[in-house]
Parts: sequence; C-alpha cells; structure tokens
Amino acid sequence: MKKIGVLLSGCGNMDGSEIHESVLSLLFIDKAGAKAVCMAPDMTQTETVNHPKGETTRETRQVLAEAGRIARGHIRPITDVNVENLDALIIPGGAGPVKNLSTYAEKGPDFEVRHDVTMLIRAFYTAGKPIGAICIAPVILAKALSAHDPKVTIGDDAATIDNLKSFGAAHQAQPVDGICIDEANMLVTTPAYMRGPGIADIAIGIEKLVTQVISMTKG
Amino acid sequence: MKKIGVLLSGCGNMDGSEIHESVLSLLFIDKAGAKAVCMAPDMTQTETVNHPKGETTRETRQVLAEAGRIARGHIRPITDVNVENLDALIIPGGAGPVKNLSTYAEKGPDFEVRHDVTMLIRAFYTAGKPIGAICIAPVILAKALSAHDPKVTIGDDAATIDNLKSFGAAHQAQPVDGICIDEANMLVTTPAYMRGPGIADIAIGIEKLVTQVISMTKG
Repeated sequence: MKKIGVLLSGCGNMDGSEIHESVLSLLFIDKAGAKAVCMAPDMTQTETVNHPKGETTRETRQVLAEAGRIARGHIRPITDVNVENLDALIIPGGAGPVKNLSTYAEKGPDFEVRHDVTMLIRAFYTAGKPIGAICIAPVILAKALSAHDPKVTIGDDAATIDNLKSFGAAHQAQPVDGICIDEANMLVTTPAYMRGPGIADIAIGIEKLVTQVISMTKG
Repeated sequence: MKKIGVLLSGCGNMDGSEIHESVLSLLFIDKAGAKAVCMAPDMTQTETVNHPKGETTRETRQVLAEAGRIARGHIRPITDVNVENLDALIIPGGAGPVKNLSTYAEKGPDFEVRHDVTMLIRAFYTAGKPIGAICIAPVILAKALSAHDPKVTIGDDAATIDNLKSFGAAHQAQPVDGICIDEANMLVTTPAYMRGPGIADIAIGIEKLVTQVISMTKG
C-alpha cells in the first residue's frame, strides 16, 4: 500500500491548515487505496485566531496538537518522519503554511521556510518522490525548491504570482478544478480556496491532485 | 436553493465535532446544490483534549469559536437561528454531541440534552422538516424526540443500543455505508466512525444521508 505523507500546520484556515483541504486530501488518499501519514512541526503557533470573529486571541497553541485534531490523534512530528518509508508528500493550504511553516504572511517575498520543513521537502525531492501542494502552500514548496526552476499554480492572485517569480519560480494559472503539473520536478499543485468558492469546487481539483501525485509514485 | 442547518459542537473528535464527518456533510450538501448554514451553541466546552496525547488539558475553549474553524468563520449561535429559514438539520458526530450538546458521555442513560439543542431539534420536527444525525449524534436526536418513538442507528454498539432502548428509541443495525430512515419522524442516521474504519468508508454513508435528507425536504 502506498504511503502518502500529509504535512499539516495547525487546524483552521486562519491560523493553521485549511480544514476542508486537509480532510479532502485524506478522503481522496483513502479512496485511492493509499494510506495517509499525517505529520506537523512541533512548534508554537505564530498566532491563534477566533475564526467567527476573525480576531487574534492571546491563546498559545501548539501546531502538532492542533493539527492532530484533523488526524484524529494519529500524527507525528516531522522530525520523526523517515522519508524512505513514504511514497509522496501532500501539503494542504490555509494560513498554516504562510504563518507557521514559513514567514510568508509576515515578510512577503523575503520570507523564509522553516528549516525542518525545507529539509523535509528537499528529502522527498532528492528521493525522486512526488510532492503535491494546495492553495497557498505551493509558495513554500516553490521556495524550498527554488534552485530547480519549479512551476506551480496558486490560482490567479497577481501579488503572489509576482512574489513567486521574484525567487525564480514559474507560475501557471489554473481554475479551481485544475492542476499544474511540473513533470521535471514531480510537483503537482491546485488553487483550491485561492479561487474557490465552494467545497464541492475545491474537491474536484484536490481529487485530481491526489490521483496525479499517486500516479507519479514509484513501483 | 435549499438551506441545510449543520449543528456543530466544537472542532475535533475527542472534545467537539468529528472533523471528517462535519466536512463531508458540508461537501455533500454543496455537491447537492444546497447551502450549508453552520451553527453551534454559545457555551464553554466541557473539556479540551490534546488529540495526539489523548489527554485532557487545562485550556478553556468556546464551542462556537472552535466550531467556526470547520465553518471557515461562517457560523452563528443556535439561538440566532430561525428554523423557518432552513429546510433541514444535520448533526455530525464526535465527542461534541455527548460532551457539549448533552451529558451522555458523563451520565449514560440518565443524560440530558442541552435545552437550546432540544428546542432546536423539536422546532425542526414540529415544522415537518427532516433531521439527519451521524455517528453518536443519533443518541441526542432520539432523546430530544423520545416521545415520538424514534428509530435510529448508531452502528452496532451494544451498550449504546441498550441506552437508546431505555428511553424508548428503536435501534436498527446498519453498516458504515448504510442509513436508517425513520419515515414517520423524518429522521435519517448513519454510523460513520461508530463503525469506520476509514474516511472513504464513512463518506459513503454520509453522502447517502445528505441525499436522503434533502430528498425529504419540502418544495
């Protein structure tokens, strides 16, 4: 059975992993007969947001513990993950990738991806294993692999496209039900809630992404 | 467009709404061309659980705020909901229904459902509008409507079935991909993670439930 790593970054679109994108990734991995292996960095969230109010609160939360809600408790720190045991990696979107996994939300084009996340992404890349990224997550994927001329989609957001190009990534516009395939680098990306609008819309692109990623795995 | 109320009770299977069951409900409502209207009681969670550790923490969290993560911020207190504007109600499972919406987890057969939740369920019932409940949530649905000889499924858990019968509800065993239909009371239930095991398995029953609930709406 193929094992697909799912890199989570909290639980909630405003301060962690986008929940719908994460759950749909798990759904389509299971439907494809593969096994999802959830992981997250063991770190304090950059912020906690009351979602109905859209306001930052004073609470301190841990990314791994919150992401574990989406994984029904079955999650491990990314530093415990052996890439040799996995066939591919998928990174759902939300604020998590740009607030927790990287400093993109704060710093824009001059951002940095967390060291352990960069190492994880490069380990999959070096092993010739495919990587999928959803919504805004392609920004951190492209940054970690910027030396390899990555091509991704984040939908059609002009400012984000400019930022991608500033560090050498190519952008391909895609609708919500489309995927961008970078065959050379084995990267698959889809806009999801960068375009939306509804969960049934994003499900189409995410199912295509999961199917494509699994089709690119070895063996 | 049909409007389907979705009663949430937190965010996470150990202390709130089961996330997969909630997201799949939203997915299949949207796929059916209907609109989900998320709601939750405005109350403090009974407890907060660190999901990877399976341990209760000292944190105090609010049900409405946490449930709002699943709803991407678009959620209202149940006391603000006008049942006249909705066509049906769906209640996902998880610990939320038995820890927050009721005292079932603590008190077993002698439990009580929160007054505002009971009033909400009875308002849909009285208006002749269908109600769906997933996983363990049929227990609170049956309790709130125990005067009407409700028939539900919670899968095949013997202790829970005995408890249902103790207050006059009938139980119908169903597999994970099955639904129990109480035509007289317009109730639809499915076991989901009461049986499992996987998200692709529970998705089948939840899609059937949503389809059946919408087919029972008026007009």
